[in-house]
Amino acid sequence: MSQLPTLYGLVATTHFLLPKLPCVMSPYIALMLWELVLVSSFVWPDHLEVICTAARYDVTVWNRSTSKCDPLISEGAKRGESPEQTAAACDVTFAMLADPAGAMEVACGPQGAVKGLSAGKGYVDVSTVDDETSKAIAEAVRKTGAEFLEAPVSGSKKPAVDGTLIFLTAGDKPLFERASPMLDVMGKSKFYLGEVGNGAAMKLVVNMVMGSMMASFSEGLLLGAKTGLDPKTIIEVIGQGAISAPMFAMKGPSMVEGQYPTAFPLKHQQKDLRLAVELADKVGQPTPIAAAVNDLYAQAKSNGLGDEDFSAIIEALKVNVNA
Amino acid sequence: MSQLPTLYGLVATTHFLLPKLPCVMSPYIALMLWELVLVSSFVWPDHLEVICTAARYDVTVWNRSTSKCDPLISEGAKRGESPEQTAAACDVTFAMLADPAGAMEVACGPQGAVKGLSAGKGYVDVSTVDDETSKAIAEAVRKTGAEFLEAPVSGSKKPAVDGTLIFLTAGDKPLFERASPMLDVMGKSKFYLGEVGNGAAMKLVVNMVMGSMMASFSEGLLLGAKTGLDPKTIIEVIGQGAISAPMFAMKGPSMVEGQYPTAFPLKHQQKDLRLAVELADKVGQPTPIAAAVNDLYAQAKSNGLGDEDFSAIIEALKVNVNA
Amino acid sequence: MSQLPTLYGLVATTHFLLPKLPCVMSPYIALMLWELVLVSSFVWPDHLEVICTAARYDVTVWNRSTSKCDPLISEGAKRGESPEQTAAACDVTFAMLADPAGAMEVACGPQGAVKGLSAGKGYVDVSTVDDETSKAIAEAVRKTGAEFLEAPVSGSKKPAVDGTLIFLTAGDKPLFERASPMLDVMGKSKFYLGEVGNGAAMKLVVNMVMGSMMASFSEGLLLGAKTGLDPKTIIEVIGQGAISAPMFAMKGPSMVEGQYPTAFPLKHQQKDLRLAVELADKVGQPTPIAAAVNDLYAQAKSNGLGDEDFSAIIEALKVNVNA
Amino acid sequence: MSQLPTLYGLVATTHFLLPKLPCVMSPYIALMLWELVLVSSFVWPDHLEVICTAARYDVTVWNRSTSKCDPLISEGAKRGESPEQTAAACDVTFAMLADPAGAMEVACGPQGAVKGLSAGKGYVDVSTVDDETSKAIAEAVRKTGAEFLEAPVSGSKKPAVDGTLIFLTAGDKPLFERASPMLDVMGKSKFYLGEVGNGAAMKLVVNMVMGSMMASFSEGLLLGAKTGLDPKTIIEVIGQGAISAPMFAMKGPSMVEGQYPTAFPLKHQQKDLRLAVELADKVGQPTPIAAAVNDLYAQAKSNGLGDEDFSAIIEALKVNVNA
Repeated sequence: MSQLPTLYGLVATTHFLLPKLPCVMSPYIALMLWELVLVSSFVWPDHLEVICTAARYDVTVWNRSTSKCDPLISEGAKRGESPEQTAAACDVTFAMLADPAGAMEVACGPQGAVKGLSAGKGYVDVSTVDDETSKAIAEAVRKTGAEFLEAPVSGSKKPAVDGTLIFLTAGDKPLFERASPMLDVMGKSKFYLGEVGNGAAMKLVVNMVMGSMMASFSEGLLLGAKTGLDPKTIIEVIGQGAISAPMFAMKGPSMVEGQYPTAFPLKHQQKDLRLAVELADKVGQPTPIAAAVNDLYAQAKSNGLGDEDFSAIIEALKVNVNA
Repeated sequence: MSQLPTLYGLVATTHFLLPKLPCVMSPYIALMLWELVLVSSFVWPDHLEVICTAARYDVTVWNRSTSKCDPLISEGAKRGESPEQTAAACDVTFAMLADPAGAMEVACGPQGAVKGLSAGKGYVDVSTVDDETSKAIAEAVRKTGAEFLEAPVSGSKKPAVDGTLIFLTAGDKPLFERASPMLDVMGKSKFYLGEVGNGAAMKLVVNMVMGSMMASFSEGLLLGAKTGLDPKTIIEVIGQGAISAPMFAMKGPSMVEGQYPTAFPLKHQQKDLRLAVELADKVGQPTPIAAAVNDLYAQAKSNGLGDEDFSAIIEALKVNVNA
Repeated sequence: MSQLPTLYGLVATTHFLLPKLPCVMSPYIALMLWELVLVSSFVWPDHLEVICTAARYDVTVWNRSTSKCDPLISEGAKRGESPEQTAAACDVTFAMLADPAGAMEVACGPQGAVKGLSAGKGYVDVSTVDDETSKAIAEAVRKTGAEFLEAPVSGSKKPAVDGTLIFLTAGDKPLFERASPMLDVMGKSKFYLGEVGNGAAMKLVVNMVMGSMMASFSEGLLLGAKTGLDPKTIIEVIGQGAISAPMFAMKGPSMVEGQYPTAFPLKHQQKDLRLAVELADKVGQPTPIAAAVNDLYAQAKSNGLGDEDFSAIIEALKVNVNA
Repeated sequence: MSQLPTLYGLVATTHFLLPKLPCVMSPYIALMLWELVLVSSFVWPDHLEVICTAARYDVTVWNRSTSKCDPLISEGAKRGESPEQTAAACDVTFAMLADPAGAMEVACGPQGAVKGLSAGKGYVDVSTVDDETSKAIAEAVRKTGAEFLEAPVSGSKKPAVDGTLIFLTAGDKPLFERASPMLDVMGKSKFYLGEVGNGAAMKLVVNMVMGSMMASFSEGLLLGAKTGLDPKTIIEVIGQGAISAPMFAMKGPSMVEGQYPTAFPLKHQQKDLRLAVELADKVGQPTPIAAAVNDLYAQAKSNGLGDEDFSAIIEALKVNVNA
């Protein structure tokens, strides 16, 4: 592994296991895998991590930190030697990296998965990356004759643990169909959205709306509190009506306590807002609300809240008389 | 009735019927009553309307348009002669008017309900009015020895028809308890929020968040469409995740079709946003998002969309190359 | 004076002196008068003050704090006993009060100027008040047969001292012409804008643009500084080009030092922005920028900057890592 | 010239002429040069143009459209054969291109100026380009031993014609001093801002403030008009006070007429706002106003106003009842 200068990881599964996957995938493994990713991906500098699915046998697992694979190995997975070797050994390879650089390295680096791919194989990138990265990986994968699917997930820690992630896939439809049983193990639903790039675009749209909703919800909690309402009651009232959303119920109570345990870091939410606003600018779509929201998150990030959960945006709206 | 120069209506019920109400209130009556209000309240100039609860017997109903009470009379309700006489004949009186002027007239006008109130009676105002109006009516009611409860509803046409309204009550707690069975007939939940004014404040907070969410959702649908995503799929994806809200599922499909059948007029949504922003200014709470959203709705209203459903805000975000 | 419960002041001048005014008005008196007003009007609770023009003789001066008139008396002005008596003794009466309540009291209170007015006389209100107050005073003045002119000034401390104020007048045109020589003594220009209310509207428009410019200028200084530019050089560069404005040259250097000596309090700038946004809402004019700017000033005010100069808005844009 | 596939131009002057430049540079030539650039730079596809200074003799001029140099040749300038040959023949070379691609091509292309540079020579790039491009050109120039100065101008058509441009220079200070007399011919002032990149940053800051001011000014004109004020009078009033700026006086009257003769295209203003907002995001500086302003310009651009003057932003704020 010393030849690979950057940190990354990868998990792969062989094709013939697919039909069995839903039953052989123990919830414990799934949870452990996701925990692995989510915990590690927020810890600097070990921020490039990978994950995917696993079964009790014939699953090959690779991670740049060898020890992170140990629990899976002890459950019966095989240990991959590199992305290249892992992809060569499996029919369908899943990759989850924390950022575009990691995704590129694992796919196209010196011992990258692309070198192990060939016609008949598939490469599913579950990472959330930008349009250009996704298209570059797609091109490299397809040149080998293999198929490519981008499949960024909507949902963070809790949905991952609960198995309620949503896969926003795009790319080669046959691979989507082949990978569907695996996606069903890890998430509660999956969408096939057409051309490569559409998965990332959908995620950006959803996260843009999410960021705005969280900011507006924060305004509501604070305005209500200032006028004498109990914020907990505001959460309850909102939870009964047309604007009730799981996010409000999940984040609201801790926000009221001034606690922001990180599931989705504020700096990532801001990055998505920024990318959405830039995309909107590029395609000529006015987004005045997202522009204001983006600035608010950027302000929060500048004020040191970047590593808190994105629900910490409420702090950016609090008045600080001693400021 | 000729002495009453302005238009209004009122429905009242006697106290001893309360325990029976849940069973005697036919869904048909409830639906009819709410339809009456909601349909008429959006038709100018007949915009001041009233409604409340009813039972098969011992319910007194009054409306400034006599004929509007006919269906209820045929179901066994008694016909009230005026707000004063109706309040005098009943233990608890419910009022629902379309605006502050109507609420004041029915409560404190020449033949207003206050003249028929006395110790032991209760007056529940289900109208959505401003703080000052609510407090003025509360004072007038309490001077007679009667109790007062403001109880604006969260929810518009569909929740009313479905009996899933939410009552945001504030004022005299004993009256809240006495009126609870009736509120349970008409809505799915009720909150007691303390001092008079808090009901209106809660509604403002909820509607502020609602207006922002709708604007942001609109941005998401349009941005997605511009980048090649199917807006219907965006609605589906959003419907699966943490930001899923009934409003998106309810309004989204018609928004995609460019249809905005009015349940909550855009001009009312804008009014609530404006009031919320003014309230925020008054209490010193920054609300940058609501300020931007308010301006967007105001722009939509200026562009002739005021009487459309508030989901027509999406039109204000559409690019018009021929503008 | 004991009958007058509230604080106010007033200065009046007789008509036949007008042609001589430009020569007889010593710069010293003008400066002193304006200093009097401006200094005192920012000191609570002595916030209701009045001022106008004066000549070496035949000028009657009144102020609720008798001693404040002493310097003018020593220059030859007569001492008025009350607004009523002063107005009765003079042809044209000028009033400058710090707020609508003071303007109403001096004009229409128990010993108010209106009681001393009659046909042939004129009443010029230099105060900045809202539309309703101005119209109410106009009506009361006109009922006596006298003429009315609203004449709010654009400019604060420095323009006042320098005699470069701008009068935004509206009301009775003959009075505008009669008062013109006096206005010329105190300001560098004057505009007649038509119906009562237009003076206030013009001031609101100008102040709205001013508030936005100051906020944007602040963004520029801070963004430049963050990227390694010297803020003083930014001020210089801006001072050379198409966006050069006296305000930037005047306020910029102290802003760079973090100093905000109050000429126009931030809370008043915010009030004007709020009123402008509300006016825009009322007349159906989108003002997305002013809405965002207003929220920023409101936030600054909430953070304790209300009594600083409005240029302190730059503080609201500074990142505070320890927030 | 057939080897040069893209369009560009260049003007150079020999060093020993510098002391004489201020007198030998005829205003006619300067004007003609600038007109040349400015007119052509807005005409697609002939968008890459170049300009600089000239003297009656010993000036070498090059432009990818040979005929554009003819008027200068007839005034005594020599005709350059390529950027390379021109740079080789002169001590100091000025370049003005319309965009980064053009600037790169003229500097570093197959017959680019860099090939003609060597120690003792200087290269001044008056184009407005991004940070990366400027730094890349600086590096290429310096590798030859020559000095580099970026010198983007603040000001568009009218300042160019009037000789009142402002040069925002950064890079090698000795070259700044050597080029100063030439810059003095073409502009009214010049700033040396330190490291390469600072010139572009300063221009971005100034243009950001400018875009916000124009948007706010537009709001003021429209709000005033809606409340019954004459927009021309608003321009006059603003022109008298602390927020008076040449831009308002210059653009206001035509804006009132709905005319937007292009000096600085709206799409370029929007691009600068976008870059400023992205820069702010990068360095962690909140710019809520610029974010809202950027969205407004982006909306205007999407609505087909991109090629109009940036003062056409007022159109984006107009209510269109038939929208």
